[in-house]
Parts: sequence; structure tokens; C-alpha cells
Amino acid sequence: MNKKVAVILSGCGVYDGSEIHESVITLLRLDQRGAEVQCFAPNVNQLHVVDHYSGDEADETRNVLVESARIARGKIKDVRELHVADFDALIMPGGFGVAKNLSDFALSGATCTVQPDVLNAAQGFVKAEKPVGLICIAPALAAKIFGAGIVCTVGNDHDTVATLEQMGAVHKECEVTEIIEDPLHKLVTTPAYMLAQSISQAAAGINKLVDRVLELTHAD
Amino acid sequence: MNKKVAVILSGCGVYDGSEIHESVITLLRLDQRGAEVQCFAPNVNQLHVVDHYSGDEADETRNVLVESARIARGKIKDVRELHVADFDALIMPGGFGVAKNLSDFALSGATCTVQPDVLNAAQGFVKAEKPVGLICIAPALAAKIFGAGIVCTVGNDHDTVATLEQMGAVHKECEVTEIIEDPLHKLVTTPAYMLAQSISQAAAGINKLVDRVLELTHAD
Repeated sequence: MNKKVAVILSGCGVYDGSEIHESVITLLRLDQRGAEVQCFAPNVNQLHVVDHYSGDEADETRNVLVESARIARGKIKDVRELHVADFDALIMPGGFGVAKNLSDFALSGATCTVQPDVLNAAQGFVKAEKPVGLICIAPALAAKIFGAGIVCTVGNDHDTVATLEQMGAVHKECEVTEIIEDPLHKLVTTPAYMLAQSISQAAAGINKLVDRVLELTHAD
Repeated sequence: MNKKVAVILSGCGVYDGSEIHESVITLLRLDQRGAEVQCFAPNVNQLHVVDHYSGDEADETRNVLVESARIARGKIKDVRELHVADFDALIMPGGFGVAKNLSDFALSGATCTVQPDVLNAAQGFVKAEKPVGLICIAPALAAKIFGAGIVCTVGNDHDTVATLEQMGAVHKECEVTEIIEDPLHKLVTTPAYMLAQSISQAAAGINKLVDRVLELTHAD
């Protein structure tokens, strides 16, 4: 039986949505390993829209589900339709969208809250003891999803690490090509573009994360 | 010396811009093979904006260079700044953006014209006898860039093949995991999502195309 993996996206573009390279590398590795993938995103407006050429904020409104559909080639569902029983694992790529659209981490730091539909879906995987992979900045949500004591990495950025520890996470430094695993909670994390200087560096860690998440689906 | 490769994008999203998977797979393979990459796009408005969730046309205006910057993580230049002398090869991923923004192929078929800045850049590589890779629907521009008699593939779609042949191209059928090469003109093409049923199928052909384009940079 092919493993079924849910991927939650947060828009389309590193500065206001899902990091595109991380998302595509995740989808590619999952497919190469024979997993069936379904993408999801919350049906909410983005915090804002960033012009990725100039870096300036744009006077526009875009919807997270609609923009995420670009990465998914249209094959995407509202995260409210994510039924945990239908899937073996969950993976969330990074990008500022995780901190701006899936939560308000970018604005509120340690006192952030996670978008309710996303939190509900992610906690469903935790309750079902199914593996979860969080990439790049997505582990910023780990303490909210799993509770205090969760072991994870966002690489080695001091400010981000301090904020995660304030939230109750146990941070482990990690190189860009490696993963950190919390075996008790079946959480796998990798720094990707928190550290990557190139797309192939990001791919090295993400490929390991995907492989380990798929291995953990066999663990029961 | 690392090879330098220019990649011309056409937006961000299969239905109105660059096909995102094809673009990221191209960037990943180039980086894995040690090439230095610079992305370019024309500084023009998209033909239109498609809501990739509903499939409907959206009442919005987006710029090809600004949206392409999402795939390039901001590291992109106006294609007018593409100096052929600085590069060893050119690759153009697919997506409807090639037929809607880099040309009017989607509207005009065999009588289409190529966006002048893109045509000028691409023909610069031809004149300099540097290799060119065209992915998915991008070979629709081959006869305009290289002239009649150019050998290429868009897979096996009868209508598209007929239109390319009307334009003077010599079409070769090709499987999704394979490439077609016109050795005389150093053009390499692969069908990717013209045929691909999955992202890993698209990757198989694109990886071969990237590898062959890089080999051809050593041919002189």
C-alpha cells in the first residue's frame, strides 16, 4: 500500500507564503518514494502580499488557499477537509507564510497562535500518533502543536531559537543537510532555508526528512 | 570553471505563468551539477491571472517579472539585462506563461510572435552557438527562435504538434522521461508536463535535459 501524506501549504512565495523550492522538493521526494500526496491550505487571506522583485509590501489581497493552488497545480483542498484518518503522515514546508498565514508568529513571537483549522488538523496527527515533518521555520509551531518539551530544530539562529525555547520547545542545533527527530512524538525537522545557501543544500535536508517521515509510518 | 546558465521564467503558476515544478526541478538540477544560475523574466504584465484553485480568470493584473521573482526567491533580473556573453547556456521551463506572456502562442497559434526582449535574448544564444534547453510547451517558440527546420518535441499532442509543424519545426515524438536533441542547433527539448502524470516523471526528463545542456557547453 502506498503511504498517503498530507502537505499543508501557506501561500506561494518565500516572503508571504510557502517557500516554493522547499514545497516542490517535498512533493518531488514524496512522489519519488511512491507516496500519494494531497495538498491542503487554510481558506483565509494572506497577512499581506510582498512584491518578491522589489521586496516591498504590495497593496493587494491574496488568499492562502488560492495562491497555494499554484504550487499544487490546482490539486488542493481547504485544510478543513483534511481527515487525519485518510493519511499516514503530515509535512509542512517553510516560508514566511507559516509565520504570517498559518500563525501570527511573525508578529507575536512566543505569544503567537496557530490558525485554528491548521492547528486542529496538525493536532489530529499528534493524537493519532502519526509522524509529522516540519521544515525551515515551520518548527516555530511545534510547541503549539505538540506542547512543551517537543524537540526540534530551526538551525542555529539565536533569536528564533530563544523564541522557540520561550514557547517550551527543546531546540537542537542542526546542519542544513541533517534532520532532528523527536522519537517520542514522531516529529522530524530540518533547517532548509533557515540555513541553506543553495537549493541543493535545502534539498539534502528535506530529502532526509521525507525519507524519515515515511519510515516512521511503518513504525507501528 | 562553473558553467553559467540563464533561466527565463514567465510568471509563477502553470495556468498563467511558469510551471512551478518544472522551474524548481531545473534550478535544483543545475545547482546539483555545479552550475551558476541567474533567472530572468520580461518586465511586462501577464496576459491574465488565473485562480489556480477555481480555474477561473481573476480580475487582477500581475507583472511577469514580479511574479517570477517568487520562484527565484527575489534573485531575478529583467531579461533586457541578459548579456549572452556572460552565460554558457539558456533554459526555459514550461507553463502556460510561455504561450501567454513570453509569446501569444495561446491566442495566435502558428502566427504567434515572441515577446521582443525574450526573442532577442534567446536568439543571442543561437547566434553565439550556445546550447538552449526548452521544456514542456516552450518548444512552441523554437521555430521563431531558431527558424524553420529546427528539431524539437512537445510530446505527442496532435494539435500542438500540427501547429509547431505549421511554424516550420520538425517534430519528434518523445516519451516523458526522454529528451530530443537537434545536434546542429544545440537545442534540447523534453515534454515534461505536456505528458507527465506525476512530478517525478517530469523530473526524469528535465534532469536529462539539464545534464545534456551542460554537456553541450563543453562541446566547443
